[in-house]
Amino acid sequence: MNQELIGILDQTIVMLQQHREDELRTLLDELHPADLAELLEELEDEQRAAVVQLMSGPTAAEAIAELELEEQAAIVTALPPEKAKAILDEMSADDAADLFAELEPEDAGSLLQLMTQEDATDVRELMTFPEDTAGGIMTTEFVAIGAQRTAADAIDELRRAAPSAETAYYVYVVDEQGRLVGVLSLRELIVAQPDAEIRSIMRTNVVSVHVNDDQEEVARTVQKYNLLAVPVVDDQDVLRGIVTVDDVIDVLEEEATEDIFRAGGVSDAEQQLDLEGPIWPAIRARLPWLLGLLFLSLVSGKVIEGFTPLMDRVTALAIFITTMAGGAGNAATQALTVVVRGLATGEMERDQVGRVVWREARIGIVIGAICGLVLGVTAMVWNHSPWIGLIVGLSIAINLMLAKAAGSLVPVIIQRLGLDPAVASGPFIATITDTTSMLVYFSIAALILGAVL
Amino acid sequence: MNQELIGILDQTIVMLQQHREDELRTLLDELHPADLAELLEELEDEQRAAVVQLMSGPTAAEAIAELELEEQAAIVTALPPEKAKAILDEMSADDAADLFAELEPEDAGSLLQLMTQEDATDVRELMTFPEDTAGGIMTTEFVAIGAQRTAADAIDELRRAAPSAETAYYVYVVDEQGRLVGVLSLRELIVAQPDAEIRSIMRTNVVSVHVNDDQEEVARTVQKYNLLAVPVVDDQDVLRGIVTVDDVIDVLEEEATEDIFRAGGVSDAEQQLDLEGPIWPAIRARLPWLLGLLFLSLVSGKVIEGFTPLMDRVTALAIFITTMAGGAGNAATQALTVVVRGLATGEMERDQVGRVVWREARIGIVIGAICGLVLGVTAMVWNHSPWIGLIVGLSIAINLMLAKAAGSLVPVIIQRLGLDPAVASGPFIATITDTTSMLVYFSIAALILGAVL
Repeated sequence: MNQELIGILDQTIVMLQQHREDELRTLLDELHPADLAELLEELEDEQRAAVVQLMSGPTAAEAIAELELEEQAAIVTALPPEKAKAILDEMSADDAADLFAELEPEDAGSLLQLMTQEDATDVRELMTFPEDTAGGIMTTEFVAIGAQRTAADAIDELRRAAPSAETAYYVYVVDEQGRLVGVLSLRELIVAQPDAEIRSIMRTNVVSVHVNDDQEEVARTVQKYNLLAVPVVDDQDVLRGIVTVDDVIDVLEEEATEDIFRAGGVSDAEQQLDLEGPIWPAIRARLPWLLGLLFLSLVSGKVIEGFTPLMDRVTALAIFITTMAGGAGNAATQALTVVVRGLATGEMERDQVGRVVWREARIGIVIGAICGLVLGVTAMVWNHSPWIGLIVGLSIAINLMLAKAAGSLVPVIIQRLGLDPAVASGPFIATITDTTSMLVYFSIAALILGAVL
Repeated sequence: MNQELIGILDQTIVMLQQHREDELRTLLDELHPADLAELLEELEDEQRAAVVQLMSGPTAAEAIAELELEEQAAIVTALPPEKAKAILDEMSADDAADLFAELEPEDAGSLLQLMTQEDATDVRELMTFPEDTAGGIMTTEFVAIGAQRTAADAIDELRRAAPSAETAYYVYVVDEQGRLVGVLSLRELIVAQPDAEIRSIMRTNVVSVHVNDDQEEVARTVQKYNLLAVPVVDDQDVLRGIVTVDDVIDVLEEEATEDIFRAGGVSDAEQQLDLEGPIWPAIRARLPWLLGLLFLSLVSGKVIEGFTPLMDRVTALAIFITTMAGGAGNAATQALTVVVRGLATGEMERDQVGRVVWREARIGIVIGAICGLVLGVTAMVWNHSPWIGLIVGLSIAINLMLAKAAGSLVPVIIQRLGLDPAVASGPFIATITDTTSMLVYFSIAALILGAVL
């Protein structure tokens, strides 16, 4: 929240206390809905209800749509029915559908009855699509026209429909069955002769997505073709809705957060959580990973146990356990990060996989050799023993090399299994390399010390 | 690359070999510039030059602008001057400025001379702004008009300027000094009476950014206010350019990749690297981190060394070193991930820091208690020793708790120091917690075993 908004927040609270409603309304009228949303977030329930009452239907609808769904539901259910209706009527169908999905069934039912028949039908239809598909994020507010009409007709249609800001920049051309056959941007319409037939000026190779397409795929399409909105069609090619660029930005952000959370070994469930919320949902999201990895790490403990007789004779070996395990984990995490991100953004394609993994292996060889040499010399000096130096150096070299190969290969394997490569998190790969690094380290130690002791 | 494009790629290569230029031109004319860009990426240098020669100036300009800057530079410098001019003339000023920044100075100089005086001036001006600022990503193609003109004038102006698709959706209103005073969306213009004075219909509280603003801040502004473009002003409030939503998407993606790379302990330098490119730049990007962390991990080795006499007596202690260090690292990485992402997306604000860290500490207490209990019992059964069970259980509990607190606190401290919290990577925090976990584990072991042995 910037300084200016904090000032307005303070003023709002004072005006509410002093019942200066008219002044407050004037103050709030000046604000952008996105700023109003930030303001609402900071207010207590009662203050919030009073402020929403002061806002006009369209402004309230836009501001509320910017809030978390949980907060939206709390506000709308607390409002008197007529105010709730005024807001819902102005909300775009996709925002309303998301909100209704969050409500208790009985609340949703009674609110749907307040809405016009048409809006309620739109919302019910949108609610049938899974949240993370094109159908789940599309809006049904779009302007469509027949190919036999003229540019002037299309502009009239736009003027009449007066759609909301994000949805007004393309006019879609459909046939009698509602099938998508062309598109015109508002810019093209303005530049066209008013009496030009749509058919003769429309673009016919329209980029579109299917209602069932994953939201990330939809976002990538909009990103690739620099679109402001993408039309969504069904199996019959019938135009069902559009996904606008502002929603695409939110999807890309959500997907990036999801990937970042998975990479950090946090379940995506936590993405929905409030950073200041109750701790139990967060515990449920993190505990399975942590506990699972702790048990997995016992495998490396088992390896160490097998070599305790050796460590009894050369206690200095224990000193380098964390360096060995940590170094391998870090090297693997680096490779994993680069490969998982490459797969997520589509920068790395299926046919490149072999070459990328081979490149990581070569990087591992060089990095392993350098780190092995440096750490080997360090260990030698520290322990006054060339043998410890040799063991540590050689193990670091081999471990880093293996770690780079594993870090790049594991996400690829996971993807081949049909899973999201992002589930191969840094913590997961680090726990796996704990075991291999202990095996390599102690085996080399046993070999070398067996020869010299 | 999808199946359809792969087919077109094959056709393109065949047609090139058989010199069927006219057919190829028809084939390529059907393609979207973004698909043409993908095609160009797959072609050999010579084929690529031949294909670019066949494309019209505007199409070639759009397609080339989609490529990596390195590839753009290679293509443009290899073209005959008149074709290069045709393409550069059609390129938007911001794309051209990015391209010129990539060229060798002599190439840039001779190409700039080919351009019209006006375009060259725009490009030179844009090149003065740092890459990652609003000035560096803005384009100078925008439509501006005086407040005393009418809606019809504005539409005429749009028609005359016929700007590129992304820049046509707002008309900015400026005063005699070129200062930004208002804005009108194309939609608002269409709905307005043709003879309405701009002054009376424009919105005056315009969201704008400053030329020196960081690109991430610009992107967040566009995202927050659901804009299609944001105007960029200088110190005198003079309108200097606009940043369009398609560039904002690329910025957000770039910033997400940067954060992901840092979280994985990879330098952002690697973001610029080709996944199949030479290995040396990647080695340079990763080696410092890895080697630094290896040395840092020697501190935990030093702690272990201090306790070797204890381990000599109770060798079972060594078995749990990796579990102890790994568990703490993983718990810290989880907390770190949530906090760093919260700071990056602006979801977590300065005044929340204390409450978020305190929440993480409480999560750590519960998770630590549960994991400590489970692992303690496991260790007890494994080693047939209640004392080992007690040591492992207690250490896991304390270590996970400390790790959660450290994982949430370290990025906050880094931010307070004025650095990007994303530099606190998983590998970094895991290496730090290696040391604390060894200290806790062996201290508890010494205490308990000292009492019972």
